[in-house]
Amino acid sequence: MSEHRGYNGKALEFLKQNKLKVGDVIKITTDSDQTGTIMPRFEHSDDRHIVIKLKNGYNVGLELNQIKKVEYISATQANQEENKQVKPNQALPKILLLSTGGTIASRIDYRTGSVTPALTAQELNASVPELAEIANIDAEVLFSEYSENITPDHWIKIAQRLDSLSKSDYSGIIVAHGTDTMQYTAAFLSFSLSGFPKPIVLVGSQRSSDRPSSDAALNLVGAAKFIVRCDTSGVFVCMHNSESDEDIACHLGTRVRKNHTSKRNAFETVGARPAFVISQDKITQNFKNAYFGQKEYAPKINIDTKAALVKYHPGYDPKLVEDLLDHGCKAIIFEGTGLGHVGKPMYGVIKKAKEKGVFLGMTSQCLDGQVNMSVYESGRDLLHLGIIPLSNMVAETALVKAMWALANGKNTEEIMLKNVASEFTE
Amino acid sequence: MSEHRGYNGKALEFLKQNKLKVGDVIKITTDSDQTGTIMPRFEHSDDRHIVIKLKNGYNVGLELNQIKKVEYISATQANQEENKQVKPNQALPKILLLSTGGTIASRIDYRTGSVTPALTAQELNASVPELAEIANIDAEVLFSEYSENITPDHWIKIAQRLDSLSKSDYSGIIVAHGTDTMQYTAAFLSFSLSGFPKPIVLVGSQRSSDRPSSDAALNLVGAAKFIVRCDTSGVFVCMHNSESDEDIACHLGTRVRKNHTSKRNAFETVGARPAFVISQDKITQNFKNAYFGQKEYAPKINIDTKAALVKYHPGYDPKLVEDLLDHGCKAIIFEGTGLGHVGKPMYGVIKKAKEKGVFLGMTSQCLDGQVNMSVYESGRDLLHLGIIPLSNMVAETALVKAMWALANGKNTEEIMLKNVASEFTE
Repeated sequence: MSEHRGYNGKALEFLKQNKLKVGDVIKITTDSDQTGTIMPRFEHSDDRHIVIKLKNGYNVGLELNQIKKVEYISATQANQEENKQVKPNQALPKILLLSTGGTIASRIDYRTGSVTPALTAQELNASVPELAEIANIDAEVLFSEYSENITPDHWIKIAQRLDSLSKSDYSGIIVAHGTDTMQYTAAFLSFSLSGFPKPIVLVGSQRSSDRPSSDAALNLVGAAKFIVRCDTSGVFVCMHNSESDEDIACHLGTRVRKNHTSKRNAFETVGARPAFVISQDKITQNFKNAYFGQKEYAPKINIDTKAALVKYHPGYDPKLVEDLLDHGCKAIIFEGTGLGHVGKPMYGVIKKAKEKGVFLGMTSQCLDGQVNMSVYESGRDLLHLGIIPLSNMVAETALVKAMWALANGKNTEEIMLKNVASEFTE
Repeated sequence: MSEHRGYNGKALEFLKQNKLKVGDVIKITTDSDQTGTIMPRFEHSDDRHIVIKLKNGYNVGLELNQIKKVEYISATQANQEENKQVKPNQALPKILLLSTGGTIASRIDYRTGSVTPALTAQELNASVPELAEIANIDAEVLFSEYSENITPDHWIKIAQRLDSLSKSDYSGIIVAHGTDTMQYTAAFLSFSLSGFPKPIVLVGSQRSSDRPSSDAALNLVGAAKFIVRCDTSGVFVCMHNSESDEDIACHLGTRVRKNHTSKRNAFETVGARPAFVISQDKITQNFKNAYFGQKEYAPKINIDTKAALVKYHPGYDPKLVEDLLDHGCKAIIFEGTGLGHVGKPMYGVIKKAKEKGVFLGMTSQCLDGQVNMSVYESGRDLLHLGIIPLSNMVAETALVKAMWALANGKNTEEIMLKNVASEFTE
């Protein structure tokens, strides 16, 4: 363990000058006094802040040039709160937090300085004390992967574990997940667990909990409130709704997209407001329909990854579609231009794919709006060639649905056109 | 020619009942009286409107249930305005309208009922009379393609024609272009004509000029005002800024994206306000820099299409990248997840591509925000494998730039990282 793990530049100098190290308990005076333990930094650390963990479990970032005085109090002290088992309050509902990894599930152990990728129930209750007031949270680590490394095999594991909980006494399940591919996982869970009787809420964080601006705690609190107070089922993604900490957006799992690389409110519902917005004291509901197209729970947890996304652009080489056919691809989702087009050089290989029985679906790289292939000649040509317009389905969702449809029924086209989990909204 | 070309349902019934046909001159009474020639409809026609061309050249859509009276005046009558040569006003600047096709350049001949894909100067001045008050417009048809069929060969043709005009007496050039792939063409012109001394403004329309809600005229007027009143050079896309007709947005050609399939304000500048907003009486400038990185005009009009866009998703088959290598691909632009990641299953083929000397660039499928590959382990792994982060360059722009870079210099990486035409903005 480095004594100043993650600190650099001015912040590192400050610690050295004051003979302080990570884990020390200190009292810092700015406009007011605050006592806490110096936390290590990681990821994206600037050199203008010292981060300390307060006794109430919160991390706070203190700006160097605001610090008037710093006082050493004691050496590393295990936070008593942290090892204390939170006594369940029988009056509160139960929620399971199923952890799959990602920034949200990363936690720095300030005693060892190492990044531990798992959240235990105690750690969770210690670091986000409000949670214990909303529900009794059980925590379980399913696996621990940053979401860029999540594969369809992981989707199956998550779906199977959730399936086993359909009749449990949990009011809902929070799935802690990396944000990079959260929308893909949300889509797969939506299709494979159609009709699931409890809310499933994927929660991530855009900034890790050692950062002064971390969104982890608020997103978790928002998700827990949503589960406890909303009488709904479905698969949702729960993240910041704006740059501020004022409210949390709850997006439909099949309509959500990560639209910014780093902002806390990176996630957006395509073409509409978030289904629910959770603020301090109220929940606003913008989505009136039932999430699932079917009421009865009928899990179909199979996948066939022989589906591909083809994003068309001028100069796209039709040979690449030939390659897909050679590899045994059974479904192609086009991300066409405008209302759902690809250029004439593609017509030959599209015809060939259709003859081979490949499902061909059209979405738009415009992201928002409906595909409409009867407006222009190109669209009508493509309809004649057998491409199926997929209305306003998000391209990435359509790809996941195709992988799912291939493995869970004989008529892929019929499944693709049925509204299973609010993937079509108009 | 059909007598009721494009009319259907109730609108067709209305024409038949009143013994009217396309081309007839009629007087229609709603709240007021309007006299004009019945226009054929095409594309997207609803059955609730009759469209007539007024004497002043405008088309107006009249809602069936607002029509109180209709009166036949005469049979088809060639619009005198249309064949009249507009006399150039020597006091006004000159603009060339270079037409490449698309909805904006589609025009219905109400005498023959056929859709003519070209605009002549006379037709243009007749159908958008304000233009003649802003500038002397010459019109030229370069070719006529819907933009989903535009290829890199077309880009070259447009760039070569524009290059030949660099020393002309035009104040600027409007390129009429289909909206589907307008952003790709804008990007190519930006790179290939770096330093071009006059503004080049691509203009499209989301709704054809026979539709009551057509945006064609206003977009053209906005582009002409922009050219005449703004002392700038660069490549821009000029389209509606909102759902209303109030103002026109002028987007940087390398930062613009079509983000809606059908709305008139479908085009957006990624991550910022449009560079210029043109309203009735003023122009707001939001972009302070020079568009081109170099002041001197140095056209480089070559292209090598051996570049590919790889949009990563869970379950992406690395074999598809092997195929790209087999086809001689020389540059791959990844549309990674989040801050610029692809999953571990891709590492092997990335290593192989790097060994073959393929340029590997990283953008994000989040669209907005910066790629930052030093935050997470995955990003750092990919940096070590030789992937070059492309900051906040739009993925589609990066692809076009790669095609251009491959053909116009030896060091692709160096060219890709140089800000040629405001493709990087932070």
